[in-house]
Amino acid sequence: MGRLTGGDPSLLRRINSAVVLHALRATDCATLTEITRVTGLSRPTVEGVVEDLIAAGLVVGTAAEEGAARRQGRPARRFRFRAEAGHLLGLEIGAHRVAALLADLDGTVIGAQAREVGGTAGADERLERLRGAVAELLRRAGVPRGSLRAVGVATPGIVEADGTVRLGTALPGWTGLRLGERLSRSFRCPVLVENDANAAAVAEHWKGAATESDDVVFVLAGLSPGAGSLIGGRLHRGYGGAAGEIGALHLLGREATPETLLSTTGRPLHPLDEQAVAEVFALAREGDERARAAVDRFIRRLVHDVAALALALDPELVVIGGWAAGLDGVLEPLRSELERYCLRAPKVTLSLLGEAAVATGALRLALDHVEEQLFAVDGTVTARR
Amino acid sequence: MGRLTGGDPSLLRRINSAVVLHALRATDCATLTEITRVTGLSRPTVEGVVEDLIAAGLVVGTAAEEGAARRQGRPARRFRFRAEAGHLLGLEIGAHRVAALLADLDGTVIGAQAREVGGTAGADERLERLRGAVAELLRRAGVPRGSLRAVGVATPGIVEADGTVRLGTALPGWTGLRLGERLSRSFRCPVLVENDANAAAVAEHWKGAATESDDVVFVLAGLSPGAGSLIGGRLHRGYGGAAGEIGALHLLGREATPETLLSTTGRPLHPLDEQAVAEVFALAREGDERARAAVDRFIRRLVHDVAALALALDPELVVIGGWAAGLDGVLEPLRSELERYCLRAPKVTLSLLGEAAVATGALRLALDHVEEQLFAVDGTVTARR
Repeated sequence: MGRLTGGDPSLLRRINSAVVLHALRATDCATLTEITRVTGLSRPTVEGVVEDLIAAGLVVGTAAEEGAARRQGRPARRFRFRAEAGHLLGLEIGAHRVAALLADLDGTVIGAQAREVGGTAGADERLERLRGAVAELLRRAGVPRGSLRAVGVATPGIVEADGTVRLGTALPGWTGLRLGERLSRSFRCPVLVENDANAAAVAEHWKGAATESDDVVFVLAGLSPGAGSLIGGRLHRGYGGAAGEIGALHLLGREATPETLLSTTGRPLHPLDEQAVAEVFALAREGDERARAAVDRFIRRLVHDVAALALALDPELVVIGGWAAGLDGVLEPLRSELERYCLRAPKVTLSLLGEAAVATGALRLALDHVEEQLFAVDGTVTARR
Repeated sequence: MGRLTGGDPSLLRRINSAVVLHALRATDCATLTEITRVTGLSRPTVEGVVEDLIAAGLVVGTAAEEGAARRQGRPARRFRFRAEAGHLLGLEIGAHRVAALLADLDGTVIGAQAREVGGTAGADERLERLRGAVAELLRRAGVPRGSLRAVGVATPGIVEADGTVRLGTALPGWTGLRLGERLSRSFRCPVLVENDANAAAVAEHWKGAATESDDVVFVLAGLSPGAGSLIGGRLHRGYGGAAGEIGALHLLGREATPETLLSTTGRPLHPLDEQAVAEVFALAREGDERARAAVDRFIRRLVHDVAALALALDPELVVIGGWAAGLDGVLEPLRSELERYCLRAPKVTLSLLGEAAVATGALRLALDHVEEQLFAVDGTVTARR
């Protein structure tokens, strides 16, 4: 039974602190009077909270006006949120590339690093490349490792709540990897592991093609397509973290796999060979007949996969991402086919973030974690239900 | 920004009233002392709230002990929730049948009525049959129409938030029907319209095959299959109310429709002829070769549809309902195929409520509405965020 009780003073302090931080973060800087007005808290409460936040390093008073504030008629002392008080990492682990984004507590990106990695690299080598990219990124930005508050990691495969990859066929040695635990050894802050398509969906919603919609499916097009869904603005992971893994639908239809469909030689492409895929798309654009036929076959398959997602979930918007090259050609066929078969066809658009989507989503998940800790007024109240 | 403020006395009264009702409804009856202990409210507050609830007809004091309570050492006066203070209807509109369930404010069913209706009947005739069934039901139960607090209605098709059927190909004259408005003329209480598969999903979660799971897909098997999903215990309607309408996936695969697949004559069955379907299933059980081949074709199609839902949503449990006859034969093939193709296969089980699932779900939606009004402590707090 949900109850509103008066009792818990430490809860109240946390709520007030979150409210003040929230207000400060929404402005450049503010006076005590302004904070009091915006938050509805009493002046002594605001003063106490701001003092605590300054002690915690999360808020700073503008030094220049400190003296002036004491003299009548001069501007009052102003306070601002110290976004630089901590940092976040968004990491992407892919078949051919590892990437890292560094941001401050406002989520503003202040540095990026990416490194290539062989498609056949094992888990140890792949993680070593990632660690190298992170070390380089922190060094260049002059950010000490201890300043990190949260690390988000996006990876192909089904991810358990504890950060273990339950199934990950796209990367060698990935199934069963305790990825969260392995990476936690490199950081003293929480490490949050998420499926790559899920992370990309979050990223497009944050600052990509889906900022205007809360009901979104992001399709990570590829030889083994995956998808991530937001329902009412929240990530839908599924009961076992496997939601959106529609790749198997091909096999069920007893039809050819994308690597066969996209082949122009009769022999299937290698499942991880994105370069070969880009070449087929490029040839098709130049008018090569066999390549065009291959791309047509691939598009029909993609339409079927996306239709399955759209019919099951009924999203407002479908965002297509993944392969950087050639995907603009899939939009029109997708739209017209979905119009034919969906009772209510979703809008379809291309990813705006492109290659950066997955790492950006990982960063957003790290930011979510920190915001929950620092600013979660709703979360705090909700948790008491 | 969510805030906890002290201010609103009428909100506080509503919360306290809901808390007391909630507590009384959870027990047979209780004394003021017991209510005070369970709710954490003060004795005077409880006394005031109980008085108001008695005046509203929602609570009654046990008369037999009323005098006794005044004498020392005798049992104190006890109070109970009057489930009979109001009533609910759960209505089902189908291709061949309309049905109505009547329940008290505890959701206990106290009467049922069903009437056959022709598959070709228009909207007016169909609604007239439903009104007739409701009138008969209320008359037999001796419940005056004014006692109804909410009416839930389940129908095939995509239903808008205002109760209009945006698309309903299963029933003649159904697309565009302002079903909620039409039925509202017969009742003075709120009328809530829901898709039939969605209602059935809610019902199986309430008192059917899915009471133990909050992540459920209910498949309403039929010639035009539909599905309803619960995510985290809540109905997932989709952005436009069309979630789960997977029937179109057949067409997209350029494959035959279920009515063709299930035919033993070479000519497709009529899309609404469930009797013909039952005969094919019966023949198959008796060993008829053509019927078995037809059922096999149908099962392969059903497997594909269910796999699409399972891959998109990753539910814990899939409940198969719809046709009363023959569906037990689909469980094993469904399970083994889903095991092969899903990264994490859901459990699969048959509906426990059978023919009653859809009307039961409509009843539950009416009960949800009333509970929200009478007992919603969480809802009240949540709505203020």
